[in-house]
Amino acid sequence: MEVEKIIQGNRLALARLITQIENQEQAGLAVLDQLFPFTGKAHLVGITGSPGSGKSSLINHLVKQYLRSDTSQSQRVAVVAVDPTSPFSGGALLGDRVRMRDLMSEPRVFIRSMASRGAMGGLARTTGLVTQALDAAGYGTILIETVGAGQTEVEIARLAHTVIVVEAPGMGDDIQAIKAGILEIADILVVNKSDHSGAGNTVRALRNMLELARPEILAADHPSLPSIEGDEIADDPKMWVTPVVQTIATQGDGVDQLLGEIENHKSFLVDQNRRQQIDRFRLVNELNRELQSQLFARWKEVTGQAMFDRVLLALEKREITPQAAILWLLGNQTNGNDLTLSP
Amino acid sequence: MEVEKIIQGNRLALARLITQIENQEQAGLAVLDQLFPFTGKAHLVGITGSPGSGKSSLINHLVKQYLRSDTSQSQRVAVVAVDPTSPFSGGALLGDRVRMRDLMSEPRVFIRSMASRGAMGGLARTTGLVTQALDAAGYGTILIETVGAGQTEVEIARLAHTVIVVEAPGMGDDIQAIKAGILEIADILVVNKSDHSGAGNTVRALRNMLELARPEILAADHPSLPSIEGDEIADDPKMWVTPVVQTIATQGDGVDQLLGEIENHKSFLVDQNRRQQIDRFRLVNELNRELQSQLFARWKEVTGQAMFDRVLLALEKREITPQAAILWLLGNQTNGNDLTLSP
Repeated sequence: MEVEKIIQGNRLALARLITQIENQEQAGLAVLDQLFPFTGKAHLVGITGSPGSGKSSLINHLVKQYLRSDTSQSQRVAVVAVDPTSPFSGGALLGDRVRMRDLMSEPRVFIRSMASRGAMGGLARTTGLVTQALDAAGYGTILIETVGAGQTEVEIARLAHTVIVVEAPGMGDDIQAIKAGILEIADILVVNKSDHSGAGNTVRALRNMLELARPEILAADHPSLPSIEGDEIADDPKMWVTPVVQTIATQGDGVDQLLGEIENHKSFLVDQNRRQQIDRFRLVNELNRELQSQLFARWKEVTGQAMFDRVLLALEKREITPQAAILWLLGNQTNGNDLTLSP
Repeated sequence: MEVEKIIQGNRLALARLITQIENQEQAGLAVLDQLFPFTGKAHLVGITGSPGSGKSSLINHLVKQYLRSDTSQSQRVAVVAVDPTSPFSGGALLGDRVRMRDLMSEPRVFIRSMASRGAMGGLARTTGLVTQALDAAGYGTILIETVGAGQTEVEIARLAHTVIVVEAPGMGDDIQAIKAGILEIADILVVNKSDHSGAGNTVRALRNMLELARPEILAADHPSLPSIEGDEIADDPKMWVTPVVQTIATQGDGVDQLLGEIENHKSFLVDQNRRQQIDRFRLVNELNRELQSQLFARWKEVTGQAMFDRVLLALEKREITPQAAILWLLGNQTNGNDLTLSP
């Protein structure tokens, strides 16, 4: 019932499902599971950058550009904001939110903000599940907005097929953040607010960094992506050359070029059989996580809370070490470790 | 051998151990396990704030204040920087790093920066293990510096007994970050750069927010801390009233007051039997994580990669759903789900 509604494009059912996913409700997770055969079509675009880089305005214009460029009027676009400072999340300034209103009333657009803290089971995981729901609901492009370059953001970026990092001129700290690793995950770099002084310098600095970092980026490019017998690997794998795009988001300048580069990257991934690898990386992660969680739940049911608490107490009193505790709990006291736990 | 060296205060052995922990080397993790009986004494202080809030200068002066206030000269202080923009990590400006040099040559101080990305097994976990090593090595106070208020930072903050959030006047975005949740985790708020204009406004804004948020903070105060039979719970649990401290880190102003508040909070935790709960929260997390990982490793050994890959392939082709895949992999095909997986 819910499954059909969502596939048919019922927005209310979709919104309800996403809430259930966020709350880890079994009913919602079961619906999502049944939607799985309808997933795998959407192009996921991660967009990250510091507060003040103007990425929300950029996303606003990018969505409009997507709608304009779709002559068949059949394409739908979703925005998932995992950024507490985003106007999509109700953050940022009132003016930004007002400017976004026309987008929100557009039937081909679905906007959702994620609670960025305290997501049960981890924000990256929940975001991944929410994009699956949007994918099944027929949103062909899903923009995921995150802030900064912390570990969570990098994890979320790994979900995406195309990762865009937005910079603004004269943000010294950002260059540091880039050094710290964000460059590795960027498929497209944007220098927004290109009418501000210093934009040229920022573009040059980024180009230089890209030049210097290229061998490292190559090495780090989707490491440990699992391959399976029968995979088609391109004979002569090509390298993606990260473009630097200049935009003025408030006026929409350069947004068409940005969309062009996103489309280029999308084609590149398909041509090089890389899209399949990214999707597989996500599937393997999700499988592993779920297996771990279920194996643990089963073990805990068999072992019981009382036993766990006894070992915890012994650990707190420093009577045993953590490794001894683990061995004991897993019933593996083979190394002469005869624990006498007080009941 | 290594264990004795570290307990006796051999800095080289300690540095080596920390590197091994970061690289998840078995030898190092075994040493850490043997050090466990010597842990549980250190007071862990988490310090977070945006780049530009001046928290590194503040930490610099705070360490000096710790050394000055210790008349017996027996106390040792460690700094763990999980902040890529920190001068402790080699980030920030050259001047900052130069000013820190005298601290680095002080035998009672140990400074360590953590690789903030790509930490195997997660940054929060690795940081937790590193503080254990420092604790066993006799560092009575461990300052953990993180940047921002992302999920990883909140996780790291949960490791600490006392969490300090540093603000600077006129940082609009920070107030947003606070709204987004950092207030919940702060035990002490610092308004640094209090000689800048607008400091008074920032202090007032923070005090107002604290006032408004208090009921929520009370509710969120260390949720789901596990209690065990026999725990001493204070009859009349007191509430910690988050102080707002004004500092000028570059001149060391207000740092003595900050140290005073840290000591107040330390006493509060002990008086209210809360310290034990925080430590237990960490132990339970670590136990659960390790149990999950070992249960999964055992399961994978039994199941084999070939089987895993077959299911993965079926999943990629959308022949099965993720829940069916999990049921199949865990050998639980009881719900009439007769999967015919191509070999």
